[in-house]
Amino acid sequence: MSTSKRVNLDNAAGKPVEPSAIEAMLPFMISSYGNPSTLNSSGQEAKQALERARANIAALVNAEKPESIIFTSGATESNNLAIKGFANRNIDLGTRIITSSVEHMSVVNAIRFLSTKGFEAIFLPVDKFGFLSLEALEKELSDRTILVSIVHANGEIGTIEPIREISKIIHEKNACLHVDATVTGGQIPIDVKDEGIDLLTLSSNDMYGPKGVGALYIKEGLRLEPLVQGGGQERGLRSGTENIPGVVGFGKAAEIAKQEMQTNSERLIELRDNLIEGLIKPIPYAFLNGHPNTRLPDNVSTRFNFIEGESMLLSLELMGISASSGS
Amino acid sequence: MSTSKRVNLDNAAGKPVEPSAIEAMLPFMISSYGNPSTLNSSGQEAKQALERARANIAALVNAEKPESIIFTSGATESNNLAIKGFANRNIDLGTRIITSSVEHMSVVNAIRFLSTKGFEAIFLPVDKFGFLSLEALEKELSDRTILVSIVHANGEIGTIEPIREISKIIHEKNACLHVDATVTGGQIPIDVKDEGIDLLTLSSNDMYGPKGVGALYIKEGLRLEPLVQGGGQERGLRSGTENIPGVVGFGKAAEIAKQEMQTNSERLIELRDNLIEGLIKPIPYAFLNGHPNTRLPDNVSTRFNFIEGESMLLSLELMGISASSGS
Repeated sequence: MSTSKRVNLDNAAGKPVEPSAIEAMLPFMISSYGNPSTLNSSGQEAKQALERARANIAALVNAEKPESIIFTSGATESNNLAIKGFANRNIDLGTRIITSSVEHMSVVNAIRFLSTKGFEAIFLPVDKFGFLSLEALEKELSDRTILVSIVHANGEIGTIEPIREISKIIHEKNACLHVDATVTGGQIPIDVKDEGIDLLTLSSNDMYGPKGVGALYIKEGLRLEPLVQGGGQERGLRSGTENIPGVVGFGKAAEIAKQEMQTNSERLIELRDNLIEGLIKPIPYAFLNGHPNTRLPDNVSTRFNFIEGESMLLSLELMGISASSGS
Repeated sequence: MSTSKRVNLDNAAGKPVEPSAIEAMLPFMISSYGNPSTLNSSGQEAKQALERARANIAALVNAEKPESIIFTSGATESNNLAIKGFANRNIDLGTRIITSSVEHMSVVNAIRFLSTKGFEAIFLPVDKFGFLSLEALEKELSDRTILVSIVHANGEIGTIEPIREISKIIHEKNACLHVDATVTGGQIPIDVKDEGIDLLTLSSNDMYGPKGVGALYIKEGLRLEPLVQGGGQERGLRSGTENIPGVVGFGKAAEIAKQEMQTNSERLIELRDNLIEGLIKPIPYAFLNGHPNTRLPDNVSTRFNFIEGESMLLSLELMGISASSGS
């Protein structure tokens, strides 16, 4: 490395864990390692920690009650459970699933998989800013549509989708709305009740909690088929001994994210807009991807005509700067 | 609590994490938090740590190569992937799946689920010690049998199954063998090549690694359908950003388990047999479950006629002793 001071512009790919979240996790790895399914005191302590974390996640997105949240191994699993779990359990109601063309691969590939199993997949276009075409959505919604899965904000281009308007259109046709809030959870406000969200994916590491943990909000009354069978944990929707340290760290990160959202957001937007201006203005053939204002506070996405992304990454790496390029 | 010194006899339900495994994990939560899929130095460091952990797990069970191991979120997911992933991908070869009557719920319920989707499930009996009936296995194996799933040792009664003999019988009929080694991995020797194991489930926490991590050994050439679609991590068999701290802790725990297996085993067998003798000999109507010698080094399982398990657990709890009861 040619420089001693490194600059990390690649937090969207992986984040450090908030120190107080690590601190909260450690006792559950060292001394309070009981199983929440057992009756003894250590197990009951684990159970209480699990439910406290669940309440924190529920509070972050204004879920009706803590039990509306179930824990998974991460956002990819949450997206798969929301989409495949809902589709397989509700195939009696219809077989059409609608999504956008700016989704994460876990949404795209879960839906592609379903399209090989008797479901019909519709990928809607977006405009030049990355906004979903609401006209196309209205046109494609049919009586056979059971689920629409839309990303809250695409992690690469950063554009925040108009979930409230999307939800209204979908519910008029009695379909359900799954929102992939992997990169927005803990960063911008989410209110599942007010915004009319039926299923919501959340990621722990994206809000500075530990990796390997995620959550799915499930509106009361919705039916899902589990991806994983076993001991019946998480209301039978996600079996497996609970990852208590992970869940506790996630709960702590969500609590902090909620408290500091406003302050962090203002700070990040200032940094973001400075960097965008510094890149776009002086460099010819440099353009911003996504919308200038309706974008993630922590997202800078630019394209440079005539330059290969990978070669630029290597040059930046030699200067001590970490970043990511997309295709 | 009536006593200040607690005795934990419930390690089978949840274990502390080995201190050196925690130490190995922390840097990947604090400073080296890159994504192994990115090209920058932090991502490449994560990638190297991932592959070192994979090599450690492969070495523990004598897998052909590190790539034979894929990481999951735990043993329940590994069992589901092995059974449902194999069955759904190989339905062209047959629909019969055989298992035993002493399996973990993740095996039982994964197979029950498949039996609602066109597969035929056979549950074989065990003898009074918990050993699988090899005669019943031979009788039930048919040309339509694609998979036999057998637990290496049942975590409640502790009996270790004769995997080598079971494997020989199964392979004569060209079926595949999945072994659930959740509670044996890192505790007793496993050699997938020598014992003829095609799919093997391993759990991190059961060998004093972190919770929320597991692995599946997959013999070269076997075809599996993933449970979770997405970014194509883990050779496309388990998508989702890798839980690097978890995997690193698991790798460290596996390395230590391999080094100390012989010493630990001798120590535990002595403790185990002392406790069994102290319980069975003086207490009337107390009996050992499982086999007296062919059992897990760390397993004591007894039944006491005329006494309810839960009331005994509560009495023990008041004396400062944690234990578990089964049904």
